[in-house]
Amino acid sequence: MKIVLLGSGNVATHLGRAFKMAGQSIVQVWSRQPQNAQELADSVGAAVALSLEEVVTDADLYILAVKDDAIRTVAEGLELDEQLIVHTSGSAGMDVLENISKKIGVFYPLQTFSKSKAVDFRQVPIAVEGNTPEVTQTIRAIADRLSEKVILLDSLQRRTLHAGAVFACNFTNHMYTLARHLLDGCDLPFDLLRPLIAETAAKIQHNDPATVQTGPAIRHDQQTMDAHLDLLQRDPALKELYRMLSQSIINYHSQA
Amino acid sequence: MKIVLLGSGNVATHLGRAFKMAGQSIVQVWSRQPQNAQELADSVGAAVALSLEEVVTDADLYILAVKDDAIRTVAEGLELDEQLIVHTSGSAGMDVLENISKKIGVFYPLQTFSKSKAVDFRQVPIAVEGNTPEVTQTIRAIADRLSEKVILLDSLQRRTLHAGAVFACNFTNHMYTLARHLLDGCDLPFDLLRPLIAETAAKIQHNDPATVQTGPAIRHDQQTMDAHLDLLQRDPALKELYRMLSQSIINYHSQA
Repeated sequence: MKIVLLGSGNVATHLGRAFKMAGQSIVQVWSRQPQNAQELADSVGAAVALSLEEVVTDADLYILAVKDDAIRTVAEGLELDEQLIVHTSGSAGMDVLENISKKIGVFYPLQTFSKSKAVDFRQVPIAVEGNTPEVTQTIRAIADRLSEKVILLDSLQRRTLHAGAVFACNFTNHMYTLARHLLDGCDLPFDLLRPLIAETAAKIQHNDPATVQTGPAIRHDQQTMDAHLDLLQRDPALKELYRMLSQSIINYHSQA
Repeated sequence: MKIVLLGSGNVATHLGRAFKMAGQSIVQVWSRQPQNAQELADSVGAAVALSLEEVVTDADLYILAVKDDAIRTVAEGLELDEQLIVHTSGSAGMDVLENISKKIGVFYPLQTFSKSKAVDFRQVPIAVEGNTPEVTQTIRAIADRLSEKVILLDSLQRRTLHAGAVFACNFTNHMYTLARHLLDGCDLPFDLLRPLIAETAAKIQHNDPATVQTGPAIRHDQQTMDAHLDLLQRDPALKELYRMLSQSIINYHSQA
């Protein structure tokens, strides 16, 4: 299978590596940043397309791993007829690729990628969707070569999954950031929190998170929450977040 | 060393086990819930005190692992003179034990404990404080037997650390809960998010969380955020949280 990779960010990089490791050949890499394209191309043994016009037209699969608002523009720069093209976005619908080719779809790997950290792609869930049952099956078969966890989702389900991932990953990482910010203000090393963070994530690998919630909010420990709010006095935005998140915990668990 | 454990919750349970494993003897366990006290006493080979009056007066260390608002009341039920007594709270000041004994202090293990899940106590940071340098040293020496990560903190630093832990652990777990809630509404299995959660926590073990922030907010990807907000339409509280947390990410990283 001949694959063209469009994009050179974290998703493109990890997908490129994963395809290579699975024995697939990336024939070309294109990116708005030619230098990044070159780097990625080198690392997966592909050629570089310096412009969209240079992109070969006879590949079996075109993977668009670019920002959501660039998907349509980049796709329109390609000349396709019935070659398979997929985007890798969690929130963009499949319809953003409408009329780009007869075979369109989505190939969304659900993981947080950093270029510097390797990821075991076999364990990365991949949500796939195609515009016909045949296309869906083709995309599924491709995903199966990379991961043990392929799932068929329509665009609404995928968007819900993506929103869930924002809470579970992006907002969570921001909680780490705010915690570090608090500790920095008191010259406390962030290392003190790292075991706690690891344990918090480990706990829910085999539990429903709602059942292992701890802390002052779920205990209705107003005294402790007031002490913390008092401490956050100097940072009104952080104080308001503390208040809202505590209230959200209280509300969630009083309904349940 | 003879230790009396007051309380039978998660902290008391894990501390009791850790002391036992370190070869220390828990002589007595008291709890407001006699049945829980019995269970914990059995598991650490201690006797049960059915009332505070029954608590022995000749122990070397009294550990108060009870809710913050119960610390003072329980402590006042004991008859101490110069026996060492510590509480295990992150946010209560040492002064809550004032005049309970000549030797008072704090022994705060920073970890999220569930009774059902074992914890490697050697890696659990313990913040200690005493009312005199000698008392501080005594408490430190005791903590050193359980953990490699003992740190001296005053009450304000400890409270800051505790507030940081609320963000890094309690609020984080609530993010997992909200993510699951979202997925449940669409019949998507939470298992899809577990690898992502593990990777998000693993990433910051060797990175500053601010440098590995991902997601639509830090990319200023308004299109995706709008798509998510639209999806959260039916749940105004969740929608507002999404909006506030995204804004917090944007603000934090535009200042930095």
